[in-house]
Amino acid sequence: MRYLNHQIILKRRTDGLPCAGDFSLGEQWIDGCGAGEVLVRNYYLSVDPAQKGWMGSAVNYASAVVGQPMRALAVGEVLVSQAEGFSVGDFVVGWLGWQEYACVTTDKIQTKVDPTVAPLRYALGALGLNGLTAYIALNDILSPDPEDTVLVSTAAGGVGSIVGQLAKRRGCHIVGLTSSDAKARLCCCEYGYDRVVNYTASDWLQQLKAACPNGVDRYFDMVGGWITDEVIGLMNHSGVHAQVGTAAVEGWSPVPLAPRRERAVLVKELTHKGFIAFNHEHRFDHARRHLLDMIDCGALNYREDIRDGLASAPAALVSLYEGTNTGKTLVRLVD
Amino acid sequence: MRYLNHQIILKRRTDGLPCAGDFSLGEQWIDGCGAGEVLVRNYYLSVDPAQKGWMGSAVNYASAVVGQPMRALAVGEVLVSQAEGFSVGDFVVGWLGWQEYACVTTDKIQTKVDPTVAPLRYALGALGLNGLTAYIALNDILSPDPEDTVLVSTAAGGVGSIVGQLAKRRGCHIVGLTSSDAKARLCCCEYGYDRVVNYTASDWLQQLKAACPNGVDRYFDMVGGWITDEVIGLMNHSGVHAQVGTAAVEGWSPVPLAPRRERAVLVKELTHKGFIAFNHEHRFDHARRHLLDMIDCGALNYREDIRDGLASAPAALVSLYEGTNTGKTLVRLVD
Repeated sequence: MRYLNHQIILKRRTDGLPCAGDFSLGEQWIDGCGAGEVLVRNYYLSVDPAQKGWMGSAVNYASAVVGQPMRALAVGEVLVSQAEGFSVGDFVVGWLGWQEYACVTTDKIQTKVDPTVAPLRYALGALGLNGLTAYIALNDILSPDPEDTVLVSTAAGGVGSIVGQLAKRRGCHIVGLTSSDAKARLCCCEYGYDRVVNYTASDWLQQLKAACPNGVDRYFDMVGGWITDEVIGLMNHSGVHAQVGTAAVEGWSPVPLAPRRERAVLVKELTHKGFIAFNHEHRFDHARRHLLDMIDCGALNYREDIRDGLASAPAALVSLYEGTNTGKTLVRLVD
Repeated sequence: MRYLNHQIILKRRTDGLPCAGDFSLGEQWIDGCGAGEVLVRNYYLSVDPAQKGWMGSAVNYASAVVGQPMRALAVGEVLVSQAEGFSVGDFVVGWLGWQEYACVTTDKIQTKVDPTVAPLRYALGALGLNGLTAYIALNDILSPDPEDTVLVSTAAGGVGSIVGQLAKRRGCHIVGLTSSDAKARLCCCEYGYDRVVNYTASDWLQQLKAACPNGVDRYFDMVGGWITDEVIGLMNHSGVHAQVGTAAVEGWSPVPLAPRRERAVLVKELTHKGFIAFNHEHRFDHARRHLLDMIDCGALNYREDIRDGLASAPAALVSLYEGTNTGKTLVRLVD
């Protein structure tokens, strides 16, 4: 059997914000797969802030390849298997790319997914990269004590919405940053945030100070840049700053300038630590079990922003940087 | 009995490098001390890079007071005691200031010193702030594995000279930075460094890369600034950067700019952590015992740069920033 595979191809690298013109539409015929490979039909494609970094020319932990389908996680069903351990009908999540069908070696598969325990698409969000990042970075790096003030940037996003709820269960005072008043309300109503500040307001820093009357003990930072420069000034002695993303910095080539931070780190004995979920796979099973337990007992509120059709993927990515998405952004190909 | 006390007074704050003109000579008569106080005759005064920070106007963990004797650690003998637990003839180390005599409440005393176990002045160096900083920051923050490459700035200084020897005992590859070829030789011959680079050389960065063929795993950083900006580029994944001082940055008001570092911290999952010895007093006894064991068995090489007379203190401080000192810098008042 032959499959006509439509693809979103990365046309060029960009060190600025992604735009639709960075991609083009491709198509190819697939006639099954080779030894050691599986052919997967993608049901949902993931849209993640990290993709901007993969598109850039700066050194990174991973890169998208120009002329190939855009690097992306996806979840789908195995249609053909020439690989041990995988059968037709298995559902899998992995590096399947922005395309309808993926013919990949099994090192590209992260894990099998059981669609009876949670909706399949959760493997890309609450039980995937978003949930795993939220759980592991919060617990292993920030490790807040009860009563600590935990500040979360992009509080309404796929990761931040989960961080708030996890930190609330630890008894922390949870403060969020987001880009609109509507999202701020959502964070407070659904995600357990005590206070949320719209960082596009001219007096956002005063609002943030008022929202953190005891300073900031733990900072879950997905943005970096000018927001982070100000947050450093609010951090308490022995504060911990987890760098989980750098979405607020437009480009890294050349490296932009920032206020020098050695003195603040020294005087307040701060810890600034980077976190990339893919390097913590030994914690994935534990984190997934914890997140699934929360979902099962209705303790995890979780929103998805689902776009339909392969062609909607580039615009979905752009929307992440425009701040117009709400919750985990996905592209649906098959339901 | 009355004592004529000569003092080095802090005349003005400075946010740049200290100079002799920042200080003036004072004198006062002391007629014993009040209830809860001890009168101490200072034998040795400490001269430390941290004093620059205490003289500045920027927020700091401690400040020197204008019009008062310069904030400094010193070691001396109790001449008069009106405080429980202290007797005439006790030797003590503490915040006694740059002066001949100090009449202080006992919260200014760090610890008693037994001059029979090591030379009294060691309480300001190898068994004092320098040794304690070296031991605790290396073991508790950097915690290198054997074979790790440990880079130490100001390798020939009071702290760096000890760090090299401690790290060598852990089986690490030890690389130092210093400001002259003569000091570089000293570091290799006496302090156990495998390679030392003179950072005043025009090709210092190339030399440093050659000295760290496997990159930098642990960075014991007492300088910050332009040197640190380059070192970040050499750090390996999961590297740890201990910020123990910022001697290479002339001033912090206004805060100078630097290449933004969130991306490097994220992508390499670096840890950047500040360290101030005074906040780790619970580890002092353990660290002192370890350092004393090394001294007793001749395993710790240790140099002192001893100046004579109270009036030599300001120039001794200036020399720290000119890089003309070698080893722990002290001012001797009584031997």
